[in-house]
Amino acid sequence: MRETKIYYKKTKLNDPILFVGLPGIGSIGSLVAEHLKKELKAKKFATLYSPYFPYQIIMLKKGSFRLVSNRFYLSKGAKGKSDIVILLGDAQPLSPEGQYEVNEKIVEFFKHLGGRRIYTIGGYSMGAQYVKEPRVFGLGTDASTVGQMKKLGVTPTEATGMSVLGSAGMIVAFSKKHKIEAACIMGETGMLDVDANSAKAVIRVVGKVIGREIKLGSIEKLSGETERMLKELDDTKMMSFPSESKPKEDTSYIR
Amino acid sequence: MRETKIYYKKTKLNDPILFVGLPGIGSIGSLVAEHLKKELKAKKFATLYSPYFPYQIIMLKKGSFRLVSNRFYLSKGAKGKSDIVILLGDAQPLSPEGQYEVNEKIVEFFKHLGGRRIYTIGGYSMGAQYVKEPRVFGLGTDASTVGQMKKLGVTPTEATGMSVLGSAGMIVAFSKKHKIEAACIMGETGMLDVDANSAKAVIRVVGKVIGREIKLGSIEKLSGETERMLKELDDTKMMSFPSESKPKEDTSYIR
Amino acid sequence: MRETKIYYKKTKLNDPILFVGLPGIGSIGSLVAEHLKKELKAKKFATLYSPYFPYQIIMLKKGSFRLVSNRFYLSKGAKGKSDIVILLGDAQPLSPEGQYEVNEKIVEFFKHLGGRRIYTIGGYSMGAQYVKEPRVFGLGTDASTVGQMKKLGVTPTEATGMSVLGSAGMIVAFSKKHKIEAACIMGETGMLDVDANSAKAVIRVVGKVIGREIKLGSIEKLSGETERMLKELDDTKMMSFPSESKPKEDTSYIR
Amino acid sequence: MRETKIYYKKTKLNDPILFVGLPGIGSIGSLVAEHLKKELKAKKFATLYSPYFPYQIIMLKKGSFRLVSNRFYLSKGAKGKSDIVILLGDAQPLSPEGQYEVNEKIVEFFKHLGGRRIYTIGGYSMGAQYVKEPRVFGLGTDASTVGQMKKLGVTPTEATGMSVLGSAGMIVAFSKKHKIEAACIMGETGMLDVDANSAKAVIRVVGKVIGREIKLGSIEKLSGETERMLKELDDTKMMSFPSESKPKEDTSYIR
Repeated sequence: MRETKIYYKKTKLNDPILFVGLPGIGSIGSLVAEHLKKELKAKKFATLYSPYFPYQIIMLKKGSFRLVSNRFYLSKGAKGKSDIVILLGDAQPLSPEGQYEVNEKIVEFFKHLGGRRIYTIGGYSMGAQYVKEPRVFGLGTDASTVGQMKKLGVTPTEATGMSVLGSAGMIVAFSKKHKIEAACIMGETGMLDVDANSAKAVIRVVGKVIGREIKLGSIEKLSGETERMLKELDDTKMMSFPSESKPKEDTSYIR
Repeated sequence: MRETKIYYKKTKLNDPILFVGLPGIGSIGSLVAEHLKKELKAKKFATLYSPYFPYQIIMLKKGSFRLVSNRFYLSKGAKGKSDIVILLGDAQPLSPEGQYEVNEKIVEFFKHLGGRRIYTIGGYSMGAQYVKEPRVFGLGTDASTVGQMKKLGVTPTEATGMSVLGSAGMIVAFSKKHKIEAACIMGETGMLDVDANSAKAVIRVVGKVIGREIKLGSIEKLSGETERMLKELDDTKMMSFPSESKPKEDTSYIR
Repeated sequence: MRETKIYYKKTKLNDPILFVGLPGIGSIGSLVAEHLKKELKAKKFATLYSPYFPYQIIMLKKGSFRLVSNRFYLSKGAKGKSDIVILLGDAQPLSPEGQYEVNEKIVEFFKHLGGRRIYTIGGYSMGAQYVKEPRVFGLGTDASTVGQMKKLGVTPTEATGMSVLGSAGMIVAFSKKHKIEAACIMGETGMLDVDANSAKAVIRVVGKVIGREIKLGSIEKLSGETERMLKELDDTKMMSFPSESKPKEDTSYIR
Repeated sequence: MRETKIYYKKTKLNDPILFVGLPGIGSIGSLVAEHLKKELKAKKFATLYSPYFPYQIIMLKKGSFRLVSNRFYLSKGAKGKSDIVILLGDAQPLSPEGQYEVNEKIVEFFKHLGGRRIYTIGGYSMGAQYVKEPRVFGLGTDASTVGQMKKLGVTPTEATGMSVLGSAGMIVAFSKKHKIEAACIMGETGMLDVDANSAKAVIRVVGKVIGREIKLGSIEKLSGETERMLKELDDTKMMSFPSESKPKEDTSYIR
């Protein structure tokens, strides 16, 4: 196996929109994509393997397993509405060469399916602080896409000298090359490896993009649990170092 | 040399079964494969070289040497019984690209030989503790293979979020792709670089798979020596830190 | 995308000279190339992408972005005078294989455009000391190019056992292979990540090469600010450790 | 440049013998090859470039330079005697893939020239101690080559679990594949980055191989200087820590 390959069931798609959520900063891409897959009852129809992925199999239940992969799920739209395709997976390519190959393959495959719009999901890291009210940032292949984002409450990114690493950025870049409209939607985040609160903010935007309300259920719960845990850490800290504690009314529950 | 290559003597094989034991966790794969080779008096009939292996030659006796390689050994089965093929070697490929190429080549080669069943051997690491009574874990390409494993006392793996890295996992994955039945058999282990005790547990399973008792001889000896050494380390530790020593009857010889 | 590619507008060039300034020691290449681009009002006419570059997009204003790239800018010469081409960019290739591929592609592309002379810009690191009066060092594909450099005040490098890493050196080497005259011009530097003072010295040489005075404006300002900052650091240091301070007249403002 | 390439002047060779001395342990390969080149007045006739080498040019005198390379030198033998070819250079390939490609190319090139015997030179590291009376170890492609080595005072290596890394080992391995007689000759060494004393021992063996006495001149001098320096270090150490000094007669000058 010397090349990235996509295996798929032939499927007729109606003006599909692709949402990409792969492992990355704050796990926001993965959280959002997994949530969409569940809420939209999407079914797997394609699998991508690559020699640039980690060389592992992942243990599943009862002695079954899967090779590290990226997977495409399909949720048929209501009559006259766009089909939704969701790409999620276990890993991103490990090397630059792999990133360039895999991310362009993804765009080419989706174009081959007749797709004309892609949204990638990522995290926008603002340092080491937990972000209680995360903003959602966005960038896109063209002014009209950015304009649409803005109407949905997304803050366009600026020339800060920052970069978007990996699939979330590369897929938007290759979309531009292949003349597909694409945007990268990033939840503000910091500190956490799994930031459900930020994922929640992104899901609200995604719901607006597809014109459907998406229930938050499990993401809401995970976000709540995380905040409770952070609060406890905060309280504990105050107890162990009483001399440093500040008056209760000044205390921020978030560090 | 830009590609993985296998050089072999043309040989007629009778429904061969492949056992793969390459360097890895606790050296269990290597220990089991070397032991099988010796006990089954298997003869080398194929050698695999790869530009993804370490760039070394290994010194042998009297100024001779070998280039780092993986080697296939054959033990002809009794009349009507399966031939046994054993793959062992000096190294696994160093890069992801190499792992994907070499492990698929191994499966393709064995399929080309007419093989339909593969068992890979590995270690299942449970942390930093020596495991006195190691369990044997397994996963497979299909429910019937896993079912067979279970009958032989192997515990099917579960969805723990854990992965199998390298050849032991990848070969089973490529077997599935190429429609070959395959299982990965893993001895529970921890702490040791060379865990003969765990290898022993796996050899017993392998014996049942091929329907032959395999003498433990040298593996038993190595396992005993390791345990004696661990016990000595334990005693020494108690002597040097007498204040920390616990009553003799409570002492576990294994740490 | 498995290969380095250059996309360009077809342009007729008059005996073009290429100046290459990519990220590197003291950022001297980048500083000089950006400055030349601005002062010579050069316009982008070609972009180079490579799977050996970092896998990032860079945020620009209003939600726009660019994929990491190297870019060629053109400044048409006055009648009968050479056109000036400037190559600058976000990164150099990450791997040896990438450096060999990208740098040779650059030379081949420029030769294809009819170019016959290349100057690469870099830094010549002399240790950890700020260099107030930087010399400019140079090496070239042939004695006549080195001789020309020398007349412009450039010190030819000697057999010191030192190397030039990356594009600044590789492009000169591939120029020689493809029978293009080339020189590497290096500003002496130390300590600073962005050494505008050394860039200034190189720009003066570049001005002589193209027979035009280049205004120093912004580079002069940046260099001045850096020196003020270094002086402040120096003064602060003296204030915080008064016991170590030396008599004012002995003090060097540069460390 | 995506492949290793060798550029050479067509030359008629008489049963040439190749000696390979590239950078490695104790710099023994490089020291020996450079010395042979000088003493045998060998002339460069071929240059090898590779995208797996470091991406550097090396500064030479008066603003000249060379791209990192390996170079073949030729010393014509007396009438009826073998021509001597010496391979030396600035670096070895950086990646496993590069080592496999470059070292096989070297063997194929030499075979193409009509060569039938290769000797690689390396260091045999025995730890961190300076070796005053270095032995010379050897391994080879066949029993007769090892036997010849033995007659010249070389100790055949044994199955110690040790490896020979890089070109010194790989070239002998590829020689075997391509049915060329080859041996690896290794000077015992330790501690030093540049071990002229060990190189001296290897040169004596090389002299016997080609049936010519090779003057030691500069190598002898370098070795003497190193020993003086080590002695001084030793004396200094005794002076700074007088309480640890042992009676003069017991002192070893070598640590």
